[in-house]
Amino acid sequence: MKQLGNLIERIIDQIGIHLRHHNFDARPYLEKRLPLRQLLKFYAFYGITARHPIHFHFSNSNLAGSYFLGQCRVDSSILYKSDIRGDELKAKGDRFRYGGRDLTIQNDEVIWIEGSYLIKALVHNYSHDPEKPDRFPIINTVATSYANIHGSPMEGGFLFPFSTVDLTSLYNSIVGRFAYVQAGEIGNKQIPDGQIWIKCPGAFEFTYRHSDTVLDHYAAFEPGGPPTGVFIDFVEEREKEFQRLFDVVHRKAPVPVPSGAAVNRYAVIRGDTKISQNVLVAQRAYLDNAWLGRGANAQEHCYIVHSRLDGFDVMAHGAKVIYGHLQENVFVGFNSFLRGSIDCPLSVGKGGIVTPHTIIDLEEPLSIPPNHLVWGFIRNGEDFEKNSICLDRLAGTNGKLQLGEATFAGDGNRFVKAFKARIEHILSDNGAYFNGRNHRGHAQKGQNISFNIIQPYMVGPSKGLYPTMDIGP
Amino acid sequence: MKQLGNLIERIIDQIGIHLRHHNFDARPYLEKRLPLRQLLKFYAFYGITARHPIHFHFSNSNLAGSYFLGQCRVDSSILYKSDIRGDELKAKGDRFRYGGRDLTIQNDEVIWIEGSYLIKALVHNYSHDPEKPDRFPIINTVATSYANIHGSPMEGGFLFPFSTVDLTSLYNSIVGRFAYVQAGEIGNKQIPDGQIWIKCPGAFEFTYRHSDTVLDHYAAFEPGGPPTGVFIDFVEEREKEFQRLFDVVHRKAPVPVPSGAAVNRYAVIRGDTKISQNVLVAQRAYLDNAWLGRGANAQEHCYIVHSRLDGFDVMAHGAKVIYGHLQENVFVGFNSFLRGSIDCPLSVGKGGIVTPHTIIDLEEPLSIPPNHLVWGFIRNGEDFEKNSICLDRLAGTNGKLQLGEATFAGDGNRFVKAFKARIEHILSDNGAYFNGRNHRGHAQKGQNISFNIIQPYMVGPSKGLYPTMDIGP
Repeated sequence: MKQLGNLIERIIDQIGIHLRHHNFDARPYLEKRLPLRQLLKFYAFYGITARHPIHFHFSNSNLAGSYFLGQCRVDSSILYKSDIRGDELKAKGDRFRYGGRDLTIQNDEVIWIEGSYLIKALVHNYSHDPEKPDRFPIINTVATSYANIHGSPMEGGFLFPFSTVDLTSLYNSIVGRFAYVQAGEIGNKQIPDGQIWIKCPGAFEFTYRHSDTVLDHYAAFEPGGPPTGVFIDFVEEREKEFQRLFDVVHRKAPVPVPSGAAVNRYAVIRGDTKISQNVLVAQRAYLDNAWLGRGANAQEHCYIVHSRLDGFDVMAHGAKVIYGHLQENVFVGFNSFLRGSIDCPLSVGKGGIVTPHTIIDLEEPLSIPPNHLVWGFIRNGEDFEKNSICLDRLAGTNGKLQLGEATFAGDGNRFVKAFKARIEHILSDNGAYFNGRNHRGHAQKGQNISFNIIQPYMVGPSKGLYPTMDIGP
Repeated sequence: MKQLGNLIERIIDQIGIHLRHHNFDARPYLEKRLPLRQLLKFYAFYGITARHPIHFHFSNSNLAGSYFLGQCRVDSSILYKSDIRGDELKAKGDRFRYGGRDLTIQNDEVIWIEGSYLIKALVHNYSHDPEKPDRFPIINTVATSYANIHGSPMEGGFLFPFSTVDLTSLYNSIVGRFAYVQAGEIGNKQIPDGQIWIKCPGAFEFTYRHSDTVLDHYAAFEPGGPPTGVFIDFVEEREKEFQRLFDVVHRKAPVPVPSGAAVNRYAVIRGDTKISQNVLVAQRAYLDNAWLGRGANAQEHCYIVHSRLDGFDVMAHGAKVIYGHLQENVFVGFNSFLRGSIDCPLSVGKGGIVTPHTIIDLEEPLSIPPNHLVWGFIRNGEDFEKNSICLDRLAGTNGKLQLGEATFAGDGNRFVKAFKARIEHILSDNGAYFNGRNHRGHAQKGQNISFNIIQPYMVGPSKGLYPTMDIGP
């Protein structure tokens, strides 16, 4: 126990040094965050497949409830119920294009977490930093509940609950609660709570900020306490269902899973749920009365409740939809919260894009027409008018555009094209286009995973720490 | 799958080379022994405690259903539902006396299994070979169902079902079914089926042999098929109960366990079972209506059914008792089978010693008086008269003694003293004398184990093999 205590102290001190110019102290957010028994209670696990190069290395760490896939190294860190999903890491021999240069990857890329504290966080994708193409480092970083670290190497980061850092190298920066950053590179910055910031230098920039009232209602986080608000209430009400999955060693999907589809055994599947061809349901996804059409995917911490996805829809990490109908090719970005009800259902037309971190919490029925981009906070048709644009109109824009409380600047066509290309890329990576032979993706590669379960020392000075492990092919 | 097939072929070839002077071919006993799906179906697991130095290293092997504790290394081997229990290995700094020499152990001892095939076998204790005091090697060896390798390093061994090699270094030798050898060292020998052989060179020698009729009834094994007979039927009827233990991740003992006692979570506990102070119940022990008095122990593959152990009784690995009453300080040796019934109960008086591999299968009630040694095959009082001796009488013997079909030669006093000392040692090692502070043994050290679960590749060329793992403190 002493060693674990020392480790937590060291991480708090270290992040304090990285963020000293912000006068930021992580202690009140972490100190009482996780009682020791939580760190002893949950086992960690890693997946073995024939399709991902494996190398796991864990030392001087607690990994309670965390999930590892692909090559991962964790040293002197606390990971709690985090998903470290290395199934999109670059492989040896891959080509990596950056700024006109074409690099050949020399070694299979590895996610390397050191001196960090991740709580219910997700690490996914591959490092977009061209400087170290075979390493995805997360160093001296704290990520709190439901933060996403997506393709974003970082050092000295503090991520508040429900924040996302996407395709961005981050140094010595703080990302506020429910903020979303996709900006290539940031250093010594403090991203305000609820800030949505998408920037492609030289091409376009989109910004929006959720109001403090909205944030306090949906995603509050005060020093000394746990996160509170609608988002946390929503996931905690469903937490027990997950617990049951972790109590058994082997588990078969409770619904038919067609060949070409994958339902992770650590996903909750309830009610009258339908899984079609090439569907991917990742670990810690939650489906209840969910109809998933061909090629749809449900990523980690994603909730689909009383909802229908027609097909080729993307539910990004942490996205939630309740009483929703997503027509084909709808994209719902990270941590978006789309809540209809039986009286006020939501429908999103074909080809729609829900910007990451959008809240749609309806007080009247809403049908979003096809091919629209939505963002911000939407309760009704009036909000929708302010917080949406037809993608064709956006594509025709060049220059500055004030859209309700959002601002767009730059080349609208490039923005729309980049977004569409990324969605296609996600569908393809997830195996939505698998034809039985070609276009294999996660939905196919994620079948036949065997899970290995690991636990910490239960007594003695190392109590709460895991033994040192090195697992190779 | 190809790699696993190659590995099995290589082991068969290698053992054939070791045993070429015996003209022995292991192929018919192994080839069809384990269908691949068995090797994929069961997870392996290792225990982490604060009290045993750990270092696990597994490479190029299948470990289905096997259990590891203490330092273990397994290379290029198939282990199936075997128990590799390294909790009595020598530790760095320990003193090891041999032939008047007093060695200091330089490194924590490790069980090192290489090129071997172990099926439902048990490896326990520490190597008694003074030549390599920090290594307990099992090399190019095959152990079939319910064989015990106890403190016995070996190279080129083939152990038939229910055989035991105890405190004996073994080279290029075959040990017949249900044979028991405790002879210090054997090389290029073939121990006949059912042979019981206890030898302390220069001091004493005990021999007995079970008849072929008895062996065919209780422990048959023909090339091309699985083992058959009463022993296998008995354990297979109870196999399903174990399966359930392996399907859940966490499990609490279904009966009260006093402090100072340990009930392994992979033991079956049924019926009206009582666990007293300082009792040890090892993994894969089976208790059904079992009353275990203070300091009693139930080791691996040991079955205690409708029976009472008054206290300080030892049920060695694989021992079974049904409708039995063991008074205090009774020792039941390896793989002994004591079967009474409701009409024909068995009672063993205080201080009794049941020689390893004894069969008592009653057709009338039997009360063994205190302080007796029994062996062989006993169905009734008449058999008992032939197959027993009062320990005081034996202790007074010097020279040769024909005891029914058993032969004793040498110093009876040394034999009795050695046996009694060993039993005391077992009780002490198992923690029977723990007083809340001192005399800690397995019953206390085995509490608070955390188990880590590992599985093989499920598809691809490595199908059935486990990834390479190295797990240290």
